[in-house]
Amino acid sequence: MLYWLDLFGTIVFAISGCLIAGRRRMDLFGVMVVSLATAIGGGTFRDLILGATPVFWVRDPIYIQLSLLTSLLVFWSARRINVDLYGLKYADALGLAVFTIIGTQKALSYGSGPTIAIMMGIMTGVMGGMIRDLLCAQVPMVLRREIYAAASLMGAAVYLGLLALPIPVELSMLLSALVTLSIRVLAIRRNLSLPTFRFHN
Amino acid sequence: MLYWLDLFGTIVFAISGCLIAGRRRMDLFGVMVVSLATAIGGGTFRDLILGATPVFWVRDPIYIQLSLLTSLLVFWSARRINVDLYGLKYADALGLAVFTIIGTQKALSYGSGPTIAIMMGIMTGVMGGMIRDLLCAQVPMVLRREIYAAASLMGAAVYLGLLALPIPVELSMLLSALVTLSIRVLAIRRNLSLPTFRFHN
Amino acid sequence: MLYWLDLFGTIVFAISGCLIAGRRRMDLFGVMVVSLATAIGGGTFRDLILGATPVFWVRDPIYIQLSLLTSLLVFWSARRINVDLYGLKYADALGLAVFTIIGTQKALSYGSGPTIAIMMGIMTGVMGGMIRDLLCAQVPMVLRREIYAAASLMGAAVYLGLLALPIPVELSMLLSALVTLSIRVLAIRRNLSLPTFRFHN
Repeated sequence: MLYWLDLFGTIVFAISGCLIAGRRRMDLFGVMVVSLATAIGGGTFRDLILGATPVFWVRDPIYIQLSLLTSLLVFWSARRINVDLYGLKYADALGLAVFTIIGTQKALSYGSGPTIAIMMGIMTGVMGGMIRDLLCAQVPMVLRREIYAAASLMGAAVYLGLLALPIPVELSMLLSALVTLSIRVLAIRRNLSLPTFRFHN
Repeated sequence: MLYWLDLFGTIVFAISGCLIAGRRRMDLFGVMVVSLATAIGGGTFRDLILGATPVFWVRDPIYIQLSLLTSLLVFWSARRINVDLYGLKYADALGLAVFTIIGTQKALSYGSGPTIAIMMGIMTGVMGGMIRDLLCAQVPMVLRREIYAAASLMGAAVYLGLLALPIPVELSMLLSALVTLSIRVLAIRRNLSLPTFRFHN
Repeated sequence: MLYWLDLFGTIVFAISGCLIAGRRRMDLFGVMVVSLATAIGGGTFRDLILGATPVFWVRDPIYIQLSLLTSLLVFWSARRINVDLYGLKYADALGLAVFTIIGTQKALSYGSGPTIAIMMGIMTGVMGGMIRDLLCAQVPMVLRREIYAAASLMGAAVYLGLLALPIPVELSMLLSALVTLSIRVLAIRRNLSLPTFRFHN
């Protein structure tokens, strides 16, 4: 179940990479690289930092194959059909929720404490999008707008809390993914955002 | 032979790093950093991802020394002589061909399958240039223009194919490097490029 | 003693990350990410490249906690009090001196020779600031202005030289940190800089 959701998250993030790269009028290869970096970037840095090398997609190339296939499909279909960018936001929220739990769980299974586990959850969820924006030479959106990483943080923290209770791990995963998903969907609908930095005048 | 070509590729990529950094009016240290990142960036990420740590230039510092020496020489000589940017493109094509084969071969020797081996070949060949452009705060050229990574992809794929035949490994390396080189040189001469992303209107 | 200076360096670099991110009007999370990347980015890449994984802050999360706490404090206080940016430059020089020695020493303890040890010292000292600037989509300051990395280089080189003498390691550390600190402070006061790249006309 988690594995399938993981693959779903990979596809969703690959699509988002394609569409952002497309606005910069990149060529086919550029779109594929940005798409790939968005889909696997977060998990790659997580694995490098935990010392879990070779990283996950070297062990199981399905992530690469799926991501490249997705970007090829989007590349050609974007010329023909109208992509629903609004619907993508909700799919992306689901990807964020899944990646967060997977990242948190992987850090725990490598013996990390709560601070590091939460950080790895957030890193897995948001770093792909940050690399995507850097490759497009713009300040990462996640650093500026809306409640995105905060939703990831809440999901990871709730997951750690639920693990302490006598309930099945699968239920903890489901509930905490729902926390991230709900907060993120609420932020999209109500256009919520965090306070921004302001210098004293 | 491959070792000497590897050092040649390092020098060529270091020069290209220098010249791009120079357009941004960086100081001596800036030029050396960008030059170094261009020359060793691709191989560094390849080694990190494969878990081949410490990375290659920690084991053999000649790569660092060569790259720094090159950037010092270019830094001073650029004030005195006219650098032939056109000739550099062809030298760069040779560097791309060599780095691609080295990256593919290294991934194979760490037990990777074909998908990952090809990806590591491309990464070794093009990622140095991508980091160079990021440090100069511009969208990586390789993502936008000309047939560059596609030439690397073809060389890596042909190499995998030739390995299946009963011919010496050295010959396979030579032939597949020639594939990358020829495609890239053709792309430079004919100004070939891949299709770019276009949204449906 | 070195441990406390290391924590001090972490705080100083976290503050500098906050203030640069603040100019880009990032939100609370953005400021925290940039702050964290500035404080731990250099040491993280050093550890990845040396193969010292999991990286230092996974083993001792105090670096993360300290950095996040710092950015929260700066985030709120910047609205209320006037931050002395000039004083920060001197604190930053101290952070650079400490991180340089720590990076050089760590590379030596992993068996690196002088070239790599000096490079790891510089990387630990300056790479956090480079990542900070990349996240803010600008060409890293260290590549363009003032004598910054050169001060780090001198400190690391002097440290290697002093280790060959029959004096206590602690004294070598102190003296070489003073070298970096003095050069950097001199560069700030006299506004010294390195020559920039100039093409032949």
